[in-house]
Amino acid sequence: MHRLPPDHYIAGIQAGDRLVLSRAITLVESQLESDQALALQVLEAVLPQTGNAIRIGITGVPGVGKSTFIEAFGKHLTSSGKKLAVLAIDPSSQRSHGSILGDKTRMETLSMDPLAYIRPSPSGGSAGGVGNKTRETMLLCEAAGFEVILIETVGVGQSETVVHGMVDFFLLLMLAGAGDELQGMKRGIMELADAIAITKADGDNAAAAERARVEYQNALHLFPPAPSQWIPPVLTCSALQNQGIEALWRLILEHQTRLTQNGFRDRNRQQQNLDWLHRTIRQQLETRFYRQPGMPERLAQIESQVQKGELLPLQGAQLLLTSWL
Amino acid sequence: MHRLPPDHYIAGIQAGDRLVLSRAITLVESQLESDQALALQVLEAVLPQTGNAIRIGITGVPGVGKSTFIEAFGKHLTSSGKKLAVLAIDPSSQRSHGSILGDKTRMETLSMDPLAYIRPSPSGGSAGGVGNKTRETMLLCEAAGFEVILIETVGVGQSETVVHGMVDFFLLLMLAGAGDELQGMKRGIMELADAIAITKADGDNAAAAERARVEYQNALHLFPPAPSQWIPPVLTCSALQNQGIEALWRLILEHQTRLTQNGFRDRNRQQQNLDWLHRTIRQQLETRFYRQPGMPERLAQIESQVQKGELLPLQGAQLLLTSWL
Repeated sequence: MHRLPPDHYIAGIQAGDRLVLSRAITLVESQLESDQALALQVLEAVLPQTGNAIRIGITGVPGVGKSTFIEAFGKHLTSSGKKLAVLAIDPSSQRSHGSILGDKTRMETLSMDPLAYIRPSPSGGSAGGVGNKTRETMLLCEAAGFEVILIETVGVGQSETVVHGMVDFFLLLMLAGAGDELQGMKRGIMELADAIAITKADGDNAAAAERARVEYQNALHLFPPAPSQWIPPVLTCSALQNQGIEALWRLILEHQTRLTQNGFRDRNRQQQNLDWLHRTIRQQLETRFYRQPGMPERLAQIESQVQKGELLPLQGAQLLLTSWL
Repeated sequence: MHRLPPDHYIAGIQAGDRLVLSRAITLVESQLESDQALALQVLEAVLPQTGNAIRIGITGVPGVGKSTFIEAFGKHLTSSGKKLAVLAIDPSSQRSHGSILGDKTRMETLSMDPLAYIRPSPSGGSAGGVGNKTRETMLLCEAAGFEVILIETVGVGQSETVVHGMVDFFLLLMLAGAGDELQGMKRGIMELADAIAITKADGDNAAAAERARVEYQNALHLFPPAPSQWIPPVLTCSALQNQGIEALWRLILEHQTRLTQNGFRDRNRQQQNLDWLHRTIRQQLETRFYRQPGMPERLAQIESQVQKGELLPLQGAQLLLTSWL
């Protein structure tokens, strides 16, 4: 694939050129070794221009109305002149090469907004490789001048934990009437949320949404307090009627102000950087290990014995590691 | 250290000889390479006698009354003839070599009960090495004929997630009056619990405990359902007045019966074995990597730059990995 010289990427990003930004993201996502060296060079050069955006993670199960919500939320931001980047982590994009945003009906208005930039972010192949290059993509968007970064994830795999580890504010979207729709949602995710928004709080659903809000608010009080001392509020919102959207944005700003003042935001970002370092090391070690020639066959055989209880996991690990070390 | 021949360990364990069991656990916990080979041989030999116990994890912050609870719960089991092993994962034992149980006042009655076996389980040194050999110790106890294994953890580090991954039933102990005492409790832990028991539900505290029970029960209904379809109940108990202990045991038996019938218990154990295999591989890869000569110094330097945002985590990882690969 045709690549630009490093300076073109760097200057283009710093000038906020979207075409160059898109090509830089493609570069960063590339698996080619030559691309990775170039990507690192570009990232390193723009690093001083990063870190100035409010980083928001959004999760919720399919059907909760994420796209509609992000469209309404995004329009609210851009209408006040804010530059917004939306990165959608798509677990299926590995296979379908961008299925989430392949659906043209998603965020139709926002995608034509000159202040908004929407980009799917492949979830990566390897175990633990979820949102593989989403952090780097976020940095590129910050360097290109985007003031708010929304990272969207589907809330059913492990990607939401990874996303939680790269944002300042983690928003959980929920439907009124807890029950079936929670099926498949990762346990523990509620306790990571900085706020819960009950979506589709309009029409016949408005009363149920308000009841859900009160219930969740009561429940959240029973959770262990966050290290930041922030108590996660529960709101209702309606993308359809454009209600609750502004309140949510004010809440995020309040969170940002408070945590910047008490020093938690910076400490949290520092810790996230450290975690990212160790996670990257772990991923690379595992990738090299599991990609050895013949490994998939040997692994499958040992997994089968371990699963049946015929072989100790410890012993299985040793058998696999012996050939490696 | 003096070791027995493998057959002595194996026969002793299978005969339920506690002295041999204790020595086998010490062997399994040893870091010496020669010990590890012997330990694996012993474990492999007793593997067919394992898996028959009910495996229970217990967590709660310091002050919740874990020891008192386990003592009451344990006495209830042994009084009906059940053989019980208590493994206490002690995060500080790395330094103090067994501080949790060094305190002689802990579980005084239970520790003299001929049907009970109490053993601290060192949490291990490396990151992720929490409860390093606790699983293997559990298997040895099962092979020695213990019918119930309690694994105790303090609920503030990451050990409780590891313990959750090795038990059938995960019990969270809580105090009435949520608030300060939750400080430091790991977020997400409530959503892992198969039951919550509000401790010290006696005297002046009884009414508050009952209120807490109702509140937590309401809150748990809002959580995503467990893959097992089990809805975690909330109980109150008093170790002092020996109340709620029997109800809790009946509940655990009901859980065991139901999940054995719907096939979840076995599937869960199979999945736990697979996770254990991959976790062991990851730990070994990381241990070898981080224990390279000179690594602590280089790592500290790169961590400092990454933390300050002067160096990309991705780049830091590459710098550290280059010298390794």
